[in-house]
Amino acid sequence: MDYRIEKDTMGEVQVPAHVYWGAQTQRSIMNFPIAQDINKMPKEIIKAFAYLKKAAALTNYEAGALPKEKSDLIGQVCDEILTGALDDQFPLVVWQTGSGTQSNMNCNEVIAYRGHVMQGGELADKQKALHPNDDVNKSQSSNDTFPTAMHIAAYKILVEVTIPGITKLRDTLRAKAEAFKHVVKIGRTHFMDATPLTLGQEFSGYASQLDHGLRAINHTLAHLSELALGGTAVGTGINTPEGYSENVAAHIAALTGLPFVTAENKFEALAAHDAIVEAHGALKTVAVSLMKIGNDIRMLSSGPRSGIGEIHIPDNEPGSSIMPGKVNPTQCEAMTMVAAQVMGNDVAISIGGSNGHFELNVFKPLMAYNFLHSARLIGDVCVSFNDNCAVGIEPLHENIKKHVNNSLMLVTALNTKIGYYKAAEIAQTAHKNGSTLKETAVALGYLTPEEFDEWVKPEDMVGKIDL
Amino acid sequence: MDYRIEKDTMGEVQVPAHVYWGAQTQRSIMNFPIAQDINKMPKEIIKAFAYLKKAAALTNYEAGALPKEKSDLIGQVCDEILTGALDDQFPLVVWQTGSGTQSNMNCNEVIAYRGHVMQGGELADKQKALHPNDDVNKSQSSNDTFPTAMHIAAYKILVEVTIPGITKLRDTLRAKAEAFKHVVKIGRTHFMDATPLTLGQEFSGYASQLDHGLRAINHTLAHLSELALGGTAVGTGINTPEGYSENVAAHIAALTGLPFVTAENKFEALAAHDAIVEAHGALKTVAVSLMKIGNDIRMLSSGPRSGIGEIHIPDNEPGSSIMPGKVNPTQCEAMTMVAAQVMGNDVAISIGGSNGHFELNVFKPLMAYNFLHSARLIGDVCVSFNDNCAVGIEPLHENIKKHVNNSLMLVTALNTKIGYYKAAEIAQTAHKNGSTLKETAVALGYLTPEEFDEWVKPEDMVGKIDL
Amino acid sequence: MDYRIEKDTMGEVQVPAHVYWGAQTQRSIMNFPIAQDINKMPKEIIKAFAYLKKAAALTNYEAGALPKEKSDLIGQVCDEILTGALDDQFPLVVWQTGSGTQSNMNCNEVIAYRGHVMQGGELADKQKALHPNDDVNKSQSSNDTFPTAMHIAAYKILVEVTIPGITKLRDTLRAKAEAFKHVVKIGRTHFMDATPLTLGQEFSGYASQLDHGLRAINHTLAHLSELALGGTAVGTGINTPEGYSENVAAHIAALTGLPFVTAENKFEALAAHDAIVEAHGALKTVAVSLMKIGNDIRMLSSGPRSGIGEIHIPDNEPGSSIMPGKVNPTQCEAMTMVAAQVMGNDVAISIGGSNGHFELNVFKPLMAYNFLHSARLIGDVCVSFNDNCAVGIEPLHENIKKHVNNSLMLVTALNTKIGYYKAAEIAQTAHKNGSTLKETAVALGYLTPEEFDEWVKPEDMVGKIDL
Amino acid sequence: MDYRIEKDTMGEVQVPAHVYWGAQTQRSIMNFPIAQDINKMPKEIIKAFAYLKKAAALTNYEAGALPKEKSDLIGQVCDEILTGALDDQFPLVVWQTGSGTQSNMNCNEVIAYRGHVMQGGELADKQKALHPNDDVNKSQSSNDTFPTAMHIAAYKILVEVTIPGITKLRDTLRAKAEAFKHVVKIGRTHFMDATPLTLGQEFSGYASQLDHGLRAINHTLAHLSELALGGTAVGTGINTPEGYSENVAAHIAALTGLPFVTAENKFEALAAHDAIVEAHGALKTVAVSLMKIGNDIRMLSSGPRSGIGEIHIPDNEPGSSIMPGKVNPTQCEAMTMVAAQVMGNDVAISIGGSNGHFELNVFKPLMAYNFLHSARLIGDVCVSFNDNCAVGIEPLHENIKKHVNNSLMLVTALNTKIGYYKAAEIAQTAHKNGSTLKETAVALGYLTPEEFDEWVKPEDMVGKIDL
Repeated sequence: MDYRIEKDTMGEVQVPAHVYWGAQTQRSIMNFPIAQDINKMPKEIIKAFAYLKKAAALTNYEAGALPKEKSDLIGQVCDEILTGALDDQFPLVVWQTGSGTQSNMNCNEVIAYRGHVMQGGELADKQKALHPNDDVNKSQSSNDTFPTAMHIAAYKILVEVTIPGITKLRDTLRAKAEAFKHVVKIGRTHFMDATPLTLGQEFSGYASQLDHGLRAINHTLAHLSELALGGTAVGTGINTPEGYSENVAAHIAALTGLPFVTAENKFEALAAHDAIVEAHGALKTVAVSLMKIGNDIRMLSSGPRSGIGEIHIPDNEPGSSIMPGKVNPTQCEAMTMVAAQVMGNDVAISIGGSNGHFELNVFKPLMAYNFLHSARLIGDVCVSFNDNCAVGIEPLHENIKKHVNNSLMLVTALNTKIGYYKAAEIAQTAHKNGSTLKETAVALGYLTPEEFDEWVKPEDMVGKIDL
Repeated sequence: MDYRIEKDTMGEVQVPAHVYWGAQTQRSIMNFPIAQDINKMPKEIIKAFAYLKKAAALTNYEAGALPKEKSDLIGQVCDEILTGALDDQFPLVVWQTGSGTQSNMNCNEVIAYRGHVMQGGELADKQKALHPNDDVNKSQSSNDTFPTAMHIAAYKILVEVTIPGITKLRDTLRAKAEAFKHVVKIGRTHFMDATPLTLGQEFSGYASQLDHGLRAINHTLAHLSELALGGTAVGTGINTPEGYSENVAAHIAALTGLPFVTAENKFEALAAHDAIVEAHGALKTVAVSLMKIGNDIRMLSSGPRSGIGEIHIPDNEPGSSIMPGKVNPTQCEAMTMVAAQVMGNDVAISIGGSNGHFELNVFKPLMAYNFLHSARLIGDVCVSFNDNCAVGIEPLHENIKKHVNNSLMLVTALNTKIGYYKAAEIAQTAHKNGSTLKETAVALGYLTPEEFDEWVKPEDMVGKIDL
Repeated sequence: MDYRIEKDTMGEVQVPAHVYWGAQTQRSIMNFPIAQDINKMPKEIIKAFAYLKKAAALTNYEAGALPKEKSDLIGQVCDEILTGALDDQFPLVVWQTGSGTQSNMNCNEVIAYRGHVMQGGELADKQKALHPNDDVNKSQSSNDTFPTAMHIAAYKILVEVTIPGITKLRDTLRAKAEAFKHVVKIGRTHFMDATPLTLGQEFSGYASQLDHGLRAINHTLAHLSELALGGTAVGTGINTPEGYSENVAAHIAALTGLPFVTAENKFEALAAHDAIVEAHGALKTVAVSLMKIGNDIRMLSSGPRSGIGEIHIPDNEPGSSIMPGKVNPTQCEAMTMVAAQVMGNDVAISIGGSNGHFELNVFKPLMAYNFLHSARLIGDVCVSFNDNCAVGIEPLHENIKKHVNNSLMLVTALNTKIGYYKAAEIAQTAHKNGSTLKETAVALGYLTPEEFDEWVKPEDMVGKIDL
Repeated sequence: MDYRIEKDTMGEVQVPAHVYWGAQTQRSIMNFPIAQDINKMPKEIIKAFAYLKKAAALTNYEAGALPKEKSDLIGQVCDEILTGALDDQFPLVVWQTGSGTQSNMNCNEVIAYRGHVMQGGELADKQKALHPNDDVNKSQSSNDTFPTAMHIAAYKILVEVTIPGITKLRDTLRAKAEAFKHVVKIGRTHFMDATPLTLGQEFSGYASQLDHGLRAINHTLAHLSELALGGTAVGTGINTPEGYSENVAAHIAALTGLPFVTAENKFEALAAHDAIVEAHGALKTVAVSLMKIGNDIRMLSSGPRSGIGEIHIPDNEPGSSIMPGKVNPTQCEAMTMVAAQVMGNDVAISIGGSNGHFELNVFKPLMAYNFLHSARLIGDVCVSFNDNCAVGIEPLHENIKKHVNNSLMLVTALNTKIGYYKAAEIAQTAHKNGSTLKETAVALGYLTPEEFDEWVKPEDMVGKIDL
């Protein structure tokens, strides 16, 4: 391979001749040979850096701290990064310095050197049109840019991927709840037969879980909207022009269309990432909901002949390499696996978040990686589950009817008529004898057949069905 | 021991003669010999049951479903439970049925039988003034009472113990931030010397963490305010009078003085406990903050002669059984241990929350136990840490001054004057030679002694100190 | 209350007149008002201290470092502690100093002062027969005694409670596997009908899980058998007589009847508690197994009319306060709740274990508390589940037969006769038409009725049934 | 793009014309659009499949169930997969069916179709030389192949990456322990000054942690060595020839050079993955150790002027984009981030492992993904930390000497001479007055200067230094 020589404050480094990155990126590649094929810094972080570097350049220009042409040039490269055209210029991994300094410098170097080339220079030139530290990183530190990128990336993925995905599934579940509102079925508590409800009511519970989950996520956006930028090295804002924090946040808000503001306390914003911990707590809550929903759907659709078998889910693929004709609830499986992953990621994030020291938390890339992973997984799996499973769910009326009519727990309707103890005796006797509730109740002399028919009607036991 | 015979739907059971509980409580004691000496059902749950049983009796009376004298009698026993006088009548453990049915029945039995005795009856009477199921449990099921008790207990402990505890510590930290606002000290990032800040700024970060944590907890109260009561067996509200859900929630709100409402979806409220998962996520966020704060305080106070040594914390007890005169940051240790516990409890709660099946989650006692444990621990440890450590923190000015004056990172102030690369050369040279920044800068010919003195002033590097 | 004055190196403290503890215990009560009613230091730790204090006294005596009468007196009090008679003399909580110094001093004080009283002194005497530090704690530090107590307590509870509990359940499951070895039933994969197996084979899987779990626990005992005692303050063994480490470990081994040895590296033994982390990892593995087993049993016993319904489990108590006659798999619920708790405790332990600094880990009480909690819960719940559920499990032959005979997955037997694709066509067609495999196979012309009967026999599809 | 038509039991599917995969792989791509750019099925699983498919073909041939030419052809493609040449033929993601059926079919299809092409056929041919199900998957099911692949991949990565990485770092730490064995330094407990030890002793603790961690991993290999293959659909071994399980395990052992055996209970091997849970528990124990070591190293090297500063670690890269000349403990940061990730992965694995139902656990891809991630991360980070940090660690003798000589805890040496209480008085007085121990001790009249010099020698307080 061809190389060129780049320098940083520690000396010279050989860099592949045609890449836009420089000495510090190259050092990181060499110093962190850790899962390099599978754990690249998430692309959402790189794009977030593009927004913030452009915003910083604009703010610096307006403050008289950077010439217009440099600011414009930086902005141009940032726009190019946002198109994805420079994706291969960001080779670093998550497992680097815990401040993300090396990814910040990767951005600074690529912007500086790509900018130099854009305006006609060559990569081999000693003197370049933009300096990674003095121009691109002006009024910034890794310590405030990386957490800013974390919040931009986190907020964006929530509103662009996670929330829309959950919402889509919630809407389908709510539509199913409406469609199935007259389908009276047996309830199950403790996995045992219980009093009836409608299939629509059952699905309304799932929709309600996601409703609450969406609210939980939304509650955490306020903290995520706070940006560390302007805190620089330790939160004091050293080497920033007057008004910089507020102005750069306003630029980022304008560029992203999201309501970012400058953090109310920069020391918190650098040294702790509780906003990430808090928001991921909401993601984990949704994961918990998805585990419940996925399990229920797989159990309700179980069978086809020896299971619960009360709903049909779409057959998407052959289910077994050895059992011919088998179809499985594979979307439920993907969804519940995602739920488990998010619950694991939550622990990684909490541990990372709790281990900041003094003025800096140095588990930033770990936290960003796990957060973005969870947010993406939840958004994607909700869409996949929705499109390939939820929309196609249909009741299996025959089974549903059989189950509800056999149920011993219809006896509950008699509590208010004959008391809990006599009702229990009817159910226990019917169970022991394999008889119906009605014949048992009459045989025990507790009521007449007519009373039974009037008092025990599954459709009268389900309460309000319009939710 | 003397026994009497009690009956339930399964038959007769020997019960200690003088206890107020009955057959089902006794069965649970016999069937669940699991950690009986250490894991009693939390007393907060029992008290929450007292509120809800009284509210249910009132609501039933108003609906014409229960005579006034029975309603009054139930209310009287509930008031007695709230005083703690009957604490020893609740012998059951957390590790029972996952719906908490046995604790619900324990309450029903104690209320019924204590009520009977209150109005002159004897425990040995066959016929009692109140029936556990038909009177005390009227219009209720374990499936809606237990989650209602969970929300009442959780909400109450948050507003009575957790939030006040955190607030107390937050206020102290904020007062320290104000008191220390002129104390310029060295910053540390990556555990390495960095640019200066004030000790007040550092403490403002801690206060800000708790501010955000309090907001995070507050955001989760809305979901916790939703009560399952009125859903009865599976969420349909079978065997409840008209308007029951809303009315019983209003009574609970009135009795507790807290803004409880009936849950918007009862199927969600029985089958999932996402409100507990969500709220505990906020507690875990605070635990993460406390771990950071506790670690920082212990490190800042380390020494006395070979550590960081920038603050003094109160000496509360001899620190070592072998090293005479040793004093340790023991309050930090209690606080960080609590943080670890809460982070573990969070996983238990998430696993419990994710494993509901169909119409019921049967990890209720587990979830209640862990939630109340965390809420209590955080509240208590914040008060203990506050009273026995935080209020007594004082700067060690001599060490602070020595550290900041020696710092090589003061060179950062030169970035905007001579550029990052020359500044780096000064710092590296000074580090290698063990010389001061000033003499090195001058020797390298990058600036005059006068320029150094003008440009490099720690007190000018800390930005805004009024926060 | 009456008080007496006790002194430590920090000065005088008022102590209740009649308790055996002294100044440092009293300070801890005052300084750590954290969950004092629910989180006492586990009694297993106190008893472990009794073993080690006696062993240390013996070793000191043999080394000429302690007079025989003092050694004997210490041993006498330790014996009394082991009877439980002094349980109320150990009032401290888990949430104290992270080294457990205060519980070590609690032991030292109680032993010294109770010893003084034993030989005729009075608590109010200024001069006592034994000195907490100079006699009882001789050749020791909290830093090596507390981790020694952790290992003694952990090892003991594993061999006395946890392993016997798991073994008991494993034996029952294995006996059931043998008893059910001819009961051919439908298999289920993805919660969907699959090829048959025997109920005995299914239960053999559970027994095998616990077999492996027991081996996993046993593998971790070697590390737990290493005792820190002799490391004293930082692992160097300062202030211990020659040969002390080996001798005191031998005494502890003799007193407990367990194969304790002195730790191969004392610095590891004080600064890290990886042995606890490792052993709890094995407990967590068993918890994972119990969750699987508990879930399967509850699902297999579900119904009674609208579930899987292939086994019957004992009816132990009324299952519902509103649904008469309901019986629930409550032992499964207790067991799966315990599993969730242990999985949460594992995280607390890992976080505690990872946060040691330099020569000492100061999350010791947290780690001990969670470990002992898990070990106890698993042991207890296995016995409870065994006695109240597993031993009474019986097959429901009628349902089992119905399910296996209906199964479409019997078609798998035809793969090797007519190929996967044609077999799939048969199953899919039968499913669509609600027909039997046999009539479908013949109708499609792929085989004769005779061939079907010869090739498709559930009892021939289950392989080896003697396991 | 050009397409060809492939068929499975559900019908026709358009597949890119030139890929080797078939209908079922293509369906999975379409049905699981979940994180497809970042979460491909780990390549270690694909390679493990290559071993097992080859072994199955050989075993089938030897059993007379597959013609030699087919067996040879399958083996040839498997060899090609092992070279990595077909990596792009495995496009599926982790988030698919929980049995991994689709990845099993991906392998079956690629082997069948690539085999067909290898012997001169064309992808467009309707009839191919090998059938994915009837030939490549013969005597197999996804349900036994995927867990077999999990164990092969897990065992291999442990012995090829994880254990060598840990061993390398352990060896370096042990060498440092030897090299530093005469460097007497201050000890620190509770982050506070304590009695002295040698730097070598301190490092011996780290080496001992990794020693124990390696043993912990090794203990778990026995369970991992058990292979599910031969269990087929539900563990009964349906559709396998006589002796298949043992023979195929022997072939896999021969091909991999690792001591694989057939699982002692196939029902356990399909329905539970406790071996993965158990082995990951050992990985997590090592993660806990690495967190401790990483934290200690970063703290010991902190400064350069206002920290602990007792060791020097290599300067690998500029540490700050804003603070010139700053160098940070970046390898510690990567290592501690990895530790946090592994601790999170452990929870995901436990949740996955606990959620098997009946005859199958359907969290297999999740478990494989997290296990391989952790094993890789630990192996890689140990090497990176070793090469870029540990090997270059050197004592900073000047600071070390200063700290130890100033220490008040040297007073501990006086316990056995003048008693704990007087020793404490000396330390407390010296601390209050800022005086030395010696002058204070003499001033208090407790000993002579000569006695002090004789009794208090740091180098005599460190015990045995050859470890």
